Amino acid sequence: MERKEEKQATKTENGDRPTSSNDAGSLCGFDSLHHLLQASLPPHLFQEVSRVLLGLNCGKPLESIHIPESAKEVSRKQDFDLQAYSFRADKEILREPRVVRVGLIQNSIAFPTTASFSDQKRTIFQKLKPIINAAGVSGVNILCLQEAWTMPFAFCTREKRWCEFAEPVDGESTQFLQEFARKYNMVIISPILERDLKHGETMWNTAVVIGNHGNIIGKHRKNHIPRVGDFNESTYYMEGNTGHPVFETIYGKIAVNICYGRHHPLNWLAFGLNGAEIVFNPSATVGELSEPMWPIEARNAAIANSYFVGSINRVGTETFPNPFTSGDGKPEHSDFGHFYGSSHFSAPDASCSPSLSRHRDGLMISDMDLNLCRQLKDKWGFRMTARYELYKDMLARYVEPNFEPQIISDPSVRKSFS
Amino acid sequence: MERKEEKQATKTENGDRPTSSNDAGSLCGFDSLHHLLQASLPPHLFQEVSRVLLGLNCGKPLESIHIPESAKEVSRKQDFDLQAYSFRADKEILREPRVVRVGLIQNSIAFPTTASFSDQKRTIFQKLKPIINAAGVSGVNILCLQEAWTMPFAFCTREKRWCEFAEPVDGESTQFLQEFARKYNMVIISPILERDLKHGETMWNTAVVIGNHGNIIGKHRKNHIPRVGDFNESTYYMEGNTGHPVFETIYGKIAVNICYGRHHPLNWLAFGLNGAEIVFNPSATVGELSEPMWPIEARNAAIANSYFVGSINRVGTETFPNPFTSGDGKPEHSDFGHFYGSSHFSAPDASCSPSLSRHRDGLMISDMDLNLCRQLKDKWGFRMTARYELYKDMLARYVEPNFEPQIISDPSVRKSFS
Repeated sequence: MERKEEKQATKTENGDRPTSSNDAGSLCGFDSLHHLLQASLPPHLFQEVSRVLLGLNCGKPLESIHIPESAKEVSRKQDFDLQAYSFRADKEILREPRVVRVGLIQNSIAFPTTASFSDQKRTIFQKLKPIINAAGVSGVNILCLQEAWTMPFAFCTREKRWCEFAEPVDGESTQFLQEFARKYNMVIISPILERDLKHGETMWNTAVVIGNHGNIIGKHRKNHIPRVGDFNESTYYMEGNTGHPVFETIYGKIAVNICYGRHHPLNWLAFGLNGAEIVFNPSATVGELSEPMWPIEARNAAIANSYFVGSINRVGTETFPNPFTSGDGKPEHSDFGHFYGSSHFSAPDASCSPSLSRHRDGLMISDMDLNLCRQLKDKWGFRMTARYELYKDMLARYVEPNFEPQIISDPSVRKSFS
Repeated sequence: MERKEEKQATKTENGDRPTSSNDAGSLCGFDSLHHLLQASLPPHLFQEVSRVLLGLNCGKPLESIHIPESAKEVSRKQDFDLQAYSFRADKEILREPRVVRVGLIQNSIAFPTTASFSDQKRTIFQKLKPIINAAGVSGVNILCLQEAWTMPFAFCTREKRWCEFAEPVDGESTQFLQEFARKYNMVIISPILERDLKHGETMWNTAVVIGNHGNIIGKHRKNHIPRVGDFNESTYYMEGNTGHPVFETIYGKIAVNICYGRHHPLNWLAFGLNGAEIVFNPSATVGELSEPMWPIEARNAAIANSYFVGSINRVGTETFPNPFTSGDGKPEHSDFGHFYGSSHFSAPDASCSPSLSRHRDGLMISDMDLNLCRQLKDKWGFRMTARYELYKDMLARYVEPNFEPQIISDPSVRKSFS
């Protein structure tokens, strides 16, 4: 049912991003939960709801930060949602604040999936240019794009021809972004479909990390691959072989938990144990499947691991040339639902930013003092009290085929089964 | 700031539970986020907010279940919040539904902390009787009480005299509950301060699991002990030594993650790996410290581990005879804030129930078809895609004193540091 409503709300004939007028009156057409509540609740109630829902101290909203007029002008002209906030941290006596400005970009595809592959790719590049420039002139230090940003999220089709979008780590998309990295002295995370030339053209779902001088610092390959609904991505690539690297950039220690990896607390944990201060989660996920999980998992990861999380989801409904079924007994169809955007930041103190639009392209910017990570570790002591030895032993037992779970049975249960 | 408002909102002169009239006009005085939103938003918006916030399919509320008039009558007379819902699961072809009715009790203390210990204990027992009876006549199969339910949560005082409330596993409180277990054919989880007579009177924070015939099935001792704010509970007891037991009862496989253990994803994970279908989280936690984390952590655990979670927090503000400081430079004071209740259930499909009152005693009942756990495992495949081998190796390395995190440095960073 939701799928149908979402389609009404967001699909447009040319596959381009919808305008807000399409959404009017649609049940699922609201643009942002935060703005919906802000517009609907009296201020004193909104303050209370913000305190509990967004973890905002006494309900006080996050401060907005100054964004140059030129960036705002571009966001109006290109019709993308531009929001900018600042997370709070305590002043320390022995350490200077380590404030970094971080950006997230979400976008729909630019041309219909029936257009030529080169046109599709070219128009996405064109579309991103002004948004990346807006990030650059706004002083963003670290910028992350969405998962497989160079292409439609075609994995639902199971058609191998979409593999043509794959590129080596130093390919066209990386070269495109290296220029911006140099121009704006900006670290850029570029999640692409990777073709691994040194290993027989194998494909991976990979995030390339580009340093602020345009250098390639390294890459991370998606660790956990979904087999759920239309997302059996193992048709295209398998589980990553790069571990849980943390990239030490000039602005701080960052890591990338790609898409489905956000459902795995152990994946979040491992980036934390390796020292990440910000973990990005570039994703592609649709409403019916995951929207209620979206804020929960990111915020839980930020709390449990005492780091910041930047969550990105693409927007829009992507309609494919050949209809496909979804393993649910329903008729064949040409799209697999609405990518609901809603990119946002979560902080280790359980607070979070409002989310970008559920329908429009967007750039989310936040200042964050990375000192907050250690402040929360000191306050809550999760690392200190975690008893990792217990879990090391538990997992070592669990992976054995003859693992016996620790079960204490009520004798009368055993009796009634025998 | 919040602490002060909470006190105004909830403290009464005799330490008894507040009436709702105390809360009027207080900033933090709302009773339940769910009810606040329901009362404030137009129905179509509330439906949308419910879909996203509570994970309710198309925003449709959970169905209420029939509760006998006698239970409702008691809840009115004793002024406790009684709510009852039913979680949905798909019908399966080869398995019958396995619907169990589960109850959570939250309560304030009954007598001021200045009263004699025996009076304090006796009046809590008295207060709980009608609530447990209401659960019993409502057909509850598994009932869980709050953390250290026999006593005020006095650990903030650091006074050792409160140790007198500790009991052996087969002590007075267990005997009290065994009668109800037999009478109502009900499994009861009883979290108490345990005195371990066989190990030199050592104390533990323990959940006793009483079978439906009144038998003691076993116990679990709290795994993770906080050292945060007023909660350095290691003054009284240390990390538990009972692992992560799952108790196989006549109604299903259950486990208990006591209080601060909810901040540890590995703790939730281990109960899941041992086969839990419902994990209870009896807690005692206050607003300023943890309220924004409260729904996030429980729901994330339910999602990530494909089981149900029952979260319980006590209610009210407990004022102690001797003022104490809190390690925050502020003046001494006699309480450590408002226990905000808000007990609720989370389901593996990312849905959750509304919460009980933030101020009043309460009994939350839910029907849940335990088949839902496996349905979600089959749908999302989190177990299948978890790659436990990676994390077994990671943790084995991490616990070594000479652990080296996996860091990929931008060479220019190293240069600038050297």
